[in-house]
Order: sequence, then structure tokens, then C-alpha cells
Amino acid sequence: MFFVIWEGRKLQNLGRELLIIMAARVFDSVLVTGSNRGIGLELIRQLVDSPSSPLQIFACCRDPDGPSAKELQTLADKHKDVITIVQLVTDSPESVVAAAKMVEVRLNGKGLNLVINNAGVNIPGSLLETGKQELVDVYTTNVVGPMLMAKHFHPLLCKSAAQFPDQSKMSCSRSAIVNVSTLLSSIKKCPENFSMSPMYPYRLSKAALNMLTRCLAEDFKKDAILVMALHPGWVQTEMGGPKAPLTTAQSVSGMITVITSLTEKHSGTLLDWEGKVIPW
Amino acid sequence: MFFVIWEGRKLQNLGRELLIIMAARVFDSVLVTGSNRGIGLELIRQLVDSPSSPLQIFACCRDPDGPSAKELQTLADKHKDVITIVQLVTDSPESVVAAAKMVEVRLNGKGLNLVINNAGVNIPGSLLETGKQELVDVYTTNVVGPMLMAKHFHPLLCKSAAQFPDQSKMSCSRSAIVNVSTLLSSIKKCPENFSMSPMYPYRLSKAALNMLTRCLAEDFKKDAILVMALHPGWVQTEMGGPKAPLTTAQSVSGMITVITSLTEKHSGTLLDWEGKVIPW
Repeated sequence: MFFVIWEGRKLQNLGRELLIIMAARVFDSVLVTGSNRGIGLELIRQLVDSPSSPLQIFACCRDPDGPSAKELQTLADKHKDVITIVQLVTDSPESVVAAAKMVEVRLNGKGLNLVINNAGVNIPGSLLETGKQELVDVYTTNVVGPMLMAKHFHPLLCKSAAQFPDQSKMSCSRSAIVNVSTLLSSIKKCPENFSMSPMYPYRLSKAALNMLTRCLAEDFKKDAILVMALHPGWVQTEMGGPKAPLTTAQSVSGMITVITSLTEKHSGTLLDWEGKVIPW
Repeated sequence: MFFVIWEGRKLQNLGRELLIIMAARVFDSVLVTGSNRGIGLELIRQLVDSPSSPLQIFACCRDPDGPSAKELQTLADKHKDVITIVQLVTDSPESVVAAAKMVEVRLNGKGLNLVINNAGVNIPGSLLETGKQELVDVYTTNVVGPMLMAKHFHPLLCKSAAQFPDQSKMSCSRSAIVNVSTLLSSIKKCPENFSMSPMYPYRLSKAALNMLTRCLAEDFKKDAILVMALHPGWVQTEMGGPKAPLTTAQSVSGMITVITSLTEKHSGTLLDWEGKVIPW
């Protein structure tokens, strides 16, 4: 007789059971920053449309009532029971604290499983076109934002991790932070792609984001919170431009596959949307 | 008969000639930021006291007339013909531009061989003790400063590189930028030393400085300007504290040996004060 053991249960009627596994929720709750467009919006869309949709999706953006959040609003109206739109300016400590409080109330005593720090900016340009302001602005959004998110959502992530039965395992089902990084963050790979995209402010900020990821992975190990960085590929978004080889749907589909299969060995790593390791 | 060939010259009377080699200037001009104390001050001291002292040393600091620059002032008074103290706030574009003009005048038509971006700050602290301001302040000094220095001293470095006869070689004799980094900048090494020194703002900024180093190394390759990052070791300075294993003199002596032996293969690398490669 052919059967598999899954989460301690012996699965005999494999066809039916596999359907159950495939439709099983990987995480109950997820929060995505910068979710009004591009990769963020597509993450919300694919998560909510999946048969294994989380119970609660917190879709964060700077200006939920503005024209740039219209698509997100329509999506949230269609899935009122699942999607909560949260006004959030990630690099404002007050805004992050307020968002964490709002999410805590909605979770009603439960912890938060997963934070995806997706919000980010880029200012392309050569060294001559780069000044103090460009460097500081991009760093503030791309690094200070994720740092504040980690700091102020830490209690909710701890609560979720503590509720998990198996203390030795890490996963996004339990508690995790995924920082959206980029191949251009790799100091080692810089000589291969510098001339095509100098982008000083962006590259510098994302290398720092990788260090933040690695620091948080060490720091939060004691709490069993997994922290990793994810390169979505070069994607046809407003930031990626029309020449990019990947559609947003393809990239996000890959990202979700990677995210849902993370274990403790991935904490503190930088992976691409296909799960391949990118060197620092 | 025993002889060696050095810079195209046949050296026969080896004892005397070796003394000449050892005393030969490696670079005519050097600029050091943050030179009023710690590693910066010791760099100026060892450079000017060496038999191979550069012809011109530009010792930069924020407040040359303040009490924190008293030792530097005394040293400069003793070596009036070599040391020029330059008032410089590295993260102020106006200040960097003004300093570059002043240095250009003093160089009197010659280029500048070497910029050592030594000025830096640290705010130790856990994640809980780290806020937006700490991250931005440390990034501004440790990353924006070296970026502005590279940008505005680029013409003087190019002039020096262009005057060198052999177009295929890179060295500090010709034209170079050395960014003072740290072992704590290594994302790969983070798990080994995180718990001892969390230092989020410092680590994040120095990882970004490494990326800046690697970008500049690519960018300035066409100009034959060598760019690298150097870890001075854990040194008994105000920043390093009294528990550090290395004296400032030991560290700087090692740094100078590494700096003077750099070739094109070291451009875009991170080395320690003994010349060992540190992974990103």
C-alpha cells in the first residue's frame, strides 16, 4: 500500500489528501508593504485568489484613498473578509507604530505570521547625477522602513512564533520577515552588472538591506522568526520598465513558491524568485 | 654578479640601492579625512615621519581650530612644508567642493595620488535602541561622505592617473581611493560576530560603503583609479575602546604596508590591515 506521512497524519487516499494539502493554508496572516501597485499588488492578488488564501491579508500603502490605490481598493472590496487596507508610511516611526496597533486589534489575540517588506524606491543615475539627498532618501525608504517594520512588528511576530507547537522549526507558517531585495544588491556580482545599471543610491541601500536581513536573522533566531531577502527578478513594473523579461505575475508566482517553502536553513540568506542563492 | 632590476634600472650596489628603494616616495600627495584623532591622526604621523614621506599631506578635519585638533596642529606646525590642514565636513557637498578647490591650488597643476576616506562614526546599540535618526546619521557620515569625496576629488585623481607613464598599471603611486571599512561590514561574517556587537547603524552603513567601493572600482576603472576598502583591525581608539587588541600604531603600520603594495588586482576588494581578503 502506498501512503505518505504529513504533519503526523498518515495519508492513504492520496488523490483527495493531496488536494487538501495543496489547498491548506500555509500562513494564517500576512502583511505586505507597498501593496498598491507592481509586485506588492500582485502579491495581494495571488494570495487572495489562491485556494490556500490566508485568513487575513494586511495590504499596506502610503495613500489608500488616493488614485494610485484604486486597483487595490477594488480588490479589497471584492474580498472584504480577508483584505484589510492599512495606511502606512514605512519610514515614519509613528505610522509604523499605529499600523502595528491596528493590525494587533484585527488579529484579536493571535500573532502575525509573515511580514513582506516590499515597499521600495529607486533613483537611477550615474555618480555625477547622485547627491546627498538621493542617497539619504533611497536609504530611508529601502532600509529605515524595513528596520522600523521589524522593530515594531516584532511583538506580533513573536506571538505567532510562540504559538507554534514545534519549537525547533522555522517557516513562514510560523513567523517570518521577507525583505524584497535585488540582484543589484550583491557586492560580489557588481562587476557583472554595474555598467548596465549604475544606480548608486539603490545598490548601496539594498546592500545595507541585506546586512539588515542578516542581522535580524541572528537577532530573531532566539524568537524562532525566520528572516530572509528575496530578489523578485527583473520585472515589468513601473520600476523595472517594459524591457524586463519577467511579468509581474510570473515573478510573484515564483516568489510565493519560494516563500512558502522556506525553512530555518534559509534564514539569513538572499534567494531569487526561483529559490537560487545569490552571493553577498 | 648579483643585481635586481627595479623600475627599469639595474641595481648593482644592492645595499645602497635598497636604502634608496626603501626611502623612495610611494606617492607624492595624499589626503586623509578625519585626521585629527585615532587612526587618521596616526596615518598623518607615520606618513610624515617616514623616510619616504609624501611631498604633500592634506590632513582634513571638521574643526581644525577646535580643541580636538590640537595634536594635529602641533604636528602640522612641526612639518609646515608637508602638512596642510584642510577644514572639511565630508557629508557637506559645499564643504567637499571647497576643500577640493583648496587642494587643487596647493597641488599647483599636479594631480592628487591618494584619498583615504577615514572619517566615520559609530552609534552602538541593539535594535530597540536604533531609530530612524541613528540609521540616517551614521549612513550620512560613513557613506554619503565618501561618495561626495569620490565625486568631487575625481578630477584631481584623474589628473594624477593620466600623468603616470604606464597606462596598464594601477597603484597608490598613481591614483587611488582607500575607504576605511570594518570586518563588521561583512554580511557573510555577520553570524560570527553579531552577538558581540549588534551595532545596526554601523554595520548597515559599512556594508553600503563596501558596495560604494565596488561600484567606484568599476566606474573609475576607465580612469585607472584604484578603489578598495580596508579594515584597520580592532584598534584602541575612541571608537574601538581600550579592550581592542591592536594599538593604533600597529594597525596604521599594517595599513600603510597594505596601501603601498596595492595593484590593479586589489581594486574592488575588502582587505584587512594584514592584506587578507575579507568576504562580502
